[in-house]
Amino acid sequence: MDRSLSRRLSAEGIGTFWLVLGGCGTAVLAGDHVGFLGVALAFGLTVLTMAYAFGHISGGHFNPAVTLGHVLARRFPRKDVLPYMAAQVLGAVAAAAVLLVIANGKPDFASDGNFLAANGFGSEGSPEGYNFLAAAVVEVVLTFGFVMIILGATDTRAHPALAGLAIGLALTLIHLISIPVDNTSVNPARSIGPALFVGGTWLRQLWFFILAPLLGGGLAGLAYPALFGKAAGDTSAA
Amino acid sequence: MDRSLSRRLSAEGIGTFWLVLGGCGTAVLAGDHVGFLGVALAFGLTVLTMAYAFGHISGGHFNPAVTLGHVLARRFPRKDVLPYMAAQVLGAVAAAAVLLVIANGKPDFASDGNFLAANGFGSEGSPEGYNFLAAAVVEVVLTFGFVMIILGATDTRAHPALAGLAIGLALTLIHLISIPVDNTSVNPARSIGPALFVGGTWLRQLWFFILAPLLGGGLAGLAYPALFGKAAGDTSAA
Amino acid sequence: MDRSLSRRLSAEGIGTFWLVLGGCGTAVLAGDHVGFLGVALAFGLTVLTMAYAFGHISGGHFNPAVTLGHVLARRFPRKDVLPYMAAQVLGAVAAAAVLLVIANGKPDFASDGNFLAANGFGSEGSPEGYNFLAAAVVEVVLTFGFVMIILGATDTRAHPALAGLAIGLALTLIHLISIPVDNTSVNPARSIGPALFVGGTWLRQLWFFILAPLLGGGLAGLAYPALFGKAAGDTSAA
Amino acid sequence: MDRSLSRRLSAEGIGTFWLVLGGCGTAVLAGDHVGFLGVALAFGLTVLTMAYAFGHISGGHFNPAVTLGHVLARRFPRKDVLPYMAAQVLGAVAAAAVLLVIANGKPDFASDGNFLAANGFGSEGSPEGYNFLAAAVVEVVLTFGFVMIILGATDTRAHPALAGLAIGLALTLIHLISIPVDNTSVNPARSIGPALFVGGTWLRQLWFFILAPLLGGGLAGLAYPALFGKAAGDTSAA
Repeated sequence: MDRSLSRRLSAEGIGTFWLVLGGCGTAVLAGDHVGFLGVALAFGLTVLTMAYAFGHISGGHFNPAVTLGHVLARRFPRKDVLPYMAAQVLGAVAAAAVLLVIANGKPDFASDGNFLAANGFGSEGSPEGYNFLAAAVVEVVLTFGFVMIILGATDTRAHPALAGLAIGLALTLIHLISIPVDNTSVNPARSIGPALFVGGTWLRQLWFFILAPLLGGGLAGLAYPALFGKAAGDTSAA
Repeated sequence: MDRSLSRRLSAEGIGTFWLVLGGCGTAVLAGDHVGFLGVALAFGLTVLTMAYAFGHISGGHFNPAVTLGHVLARRFPRKDVLPYMAAQVLGAVAAAAVLLVIANGKPDFASDGNFLAANGFGSEGSPEGYNFLAAAVVEVVLTFGFVMIILGATDTRAHPALAGLAIGLALTLIHLISIPVDNTSVNPARSIGPALFVGGTWLRQLWFFILAPLLGGGLAGLAYPALFGKAAGDTSAA
Repeated sequence: MDRSLSRRLSAEGIGTFWLVLGGCGTAVLAGDHVGFLGVALAFGLTVLTMAYAFGHISGGHFNPAVTLGHVLARRFPRKDVLPYMAAQVLGAVAAAAVLLVIANGKPDFASDGNFLAANGFGSEGSPEGYNFLAAAVVEVVLTFGFVMIILGATDTRAHPALAGLAIGLALTLIHLISIPVDNTSVNPARSIGPALFVGGTWLRQLWFFILAPLLGGGLAGLAYPALFGKAAGDTSAA
Repeated sequence: MDRSLSRRLSAEGIGTFWLVLGGCGTAVLAGDHVGFLGVALAFGLTVLTMAYAFGHISGGHFNPAVTLGHVLARRFPRKDVLPYMAAQVLGAVAAAAVLLVIANGKPDFASDGNFLAANGFGSEGSPEGYNFLAAAVVEVVLTFGFVMIILGATDTRAHPALAGLAIGLALTLIHLISIPVDNTSVNPARSIGPALFVGGTWLRQLWFFILAPLLGGGLAGLAYPALFGKAAGDTSAA
């Protein structure tokens, strides 16, 4: 591993750790106080803050669906895809573990049900019982929109200094729309972390929250250059 | 249709799709959780995110009243007005259809009453029973302010990189003020999408939510150059 | 009146109209839905949006206490102080009148008590009965901080493109702290508009909400150059 | 004391005063209205606004843990550490005193219990009874993340104009996650101010809220250059 890649993987790992700790942490520790609005804001601010902190190092993906979109848009080197995704998943799993330690510090914390804000659909898995089709449309369409925004806002023809703001607040918007449907994934790493600890229905449905965001993000990676032309907007490659 | 116009129409269509899916989607799917504050934030973030994603491609109107304001301020070519408006309306209608599919994924979703957050006034149409005069003042004055902010923030004498932030948060502000009055339009495309599916009172009042925002936006398009001089602030033309 | 001054006064008048319509409008029309958090956000967004729209024209004061701070910091021409303040007060009064028309469109709107979100202190005037001393500390200290932030953020040594963001969100912060104390003024024009229509206790206390913000803003205008040196940060002069 | 250091200490003192007055002030005066979401927003906006106001003067630390992180990352002169920390603590204590004067202006204000939003853990000190381990993980991990974001966002390879936005909103995020755990410190000065007046459990636990944030911030100061290389990102030195 060359020094530059190790730097970039550190940034992706820490950034995705922050995303899951901040987003799921707000849901688990403070959700009763701040509601879905506060949780939506928290998820967006994890990406906004880490984009400005580490965007210049790794490109600030923090999400395998974003990495896939970048490589399909030919803005990211194919050989770095798997290391990026591995670092993202590792960061997410570590964050879920740390969150569990914190949550257990409350005397009456009960680790049953969906105790780490995992993603799910259907009468058992969804916060409000939304079915598979609703979750599928939500994950594919919203991840598509998310990655379109990322590719557009980091396009060299746009305002790169503002991209972190737009991308972070896009994630807030996406959560505002869809937390009731399936707790909102649009990010396989964010789904994997909590599901491994929560188990049950949520672990059985994990495959879906890996595939659906990858499908939406991949489609955006193909659509952006087809619709709007190739741009030298990659901020991810070393 | 030349290649450049097709790119711009794609951006306007996708952007207006995102506006209606994100704004009305938050109201319909999550409104009970996030309140009018969350819905106001969502509408603003749809425009903020798409302005940074596609502003460099189409100018980021996503709203026929904004397009009208630009052409009257002589910042937009007259021949592109109708294609822009058509793309915006198509995007909005598609979003309402997709939202209906998602909403139907909740077992107890009832498609009666104002089930897609359409705009309305009077005892039947307004969220809190505000009358026609209140809705008329709100739509004309707030669309006027919205388009003044757009023309000012994209003026070359201002800070163009920050325009997307100011414009998006202006739409949040406008919704904070006026959701109780008429669910807030200031955008004929946003009004057309849901009304076609909701029907009833809301479809019968649709003419008003097409004309009033166009009046407010058109007045701003005349007022800005008259008050503040002509500026080379057009970001919309190819 | 030279053409340039008339442009600047138009900007100050429209901007202060927007501030009062947006801030007090959210409190009056939507306060039951969005709470003090939504009202605080609305006040801040009025200034944020108008700062980006008209800052390049008039400097974006929209507040006599800000104008006083600028002139004492020697960043604004003395001869323009009174015209600026007059335009600000006119805009605020017009906004209160328009807001009253909208509010009257709700069948059960009762124009008694503090029906336009006027500022007040004491058992009759304050939202939560805070006394005169609390209101005096709040208005002087928070207006001092507000004008310090404005003078610092528009200092040429800072990041002028981001000043509108910082200044707008400063007003949100100030409202988050102090709406319960006295409905938050820090702006004589914002206080004058509603008080003229509400009358009673709130009109009798209006003198205080003119003097206290001017004192706080004036102190900041003296303190900033004394503490941090003279900066060529004026964005207000023609 | 040379003139330049006195300027910088004024900025740090006023900025930390604003942080405690704005953050703890919102909790104490308006917490029942705006909830933990409003308090989280307020804390973040104090830092965002003061970063843009005074960042160009002092670097905008307002927090001994941030100053420690900067010196360990070799971005801040060692000889200025103690004066900076002293100015920060003085500002925080003054703010707590001013807040107490305002709070006493409400007829039924009772200065018992945790009446100034001090930090605490355990069944007596924590808002929701979280234990020592949870508070320790929260303070160390979140301060580590906070200072990593600061060092990254002010790195010359990043977008320095946007750093104030990212840093302020990082503090909002941190509060969204952890107010229920221990009222969120990540800042020894913020902890010292209220604890001196509140006394009891909160004063006895003050040592922890001095040491834990310093540990987290110090670790970040060592980790950032080790992971990502030395950057000429210091905005703090004169």
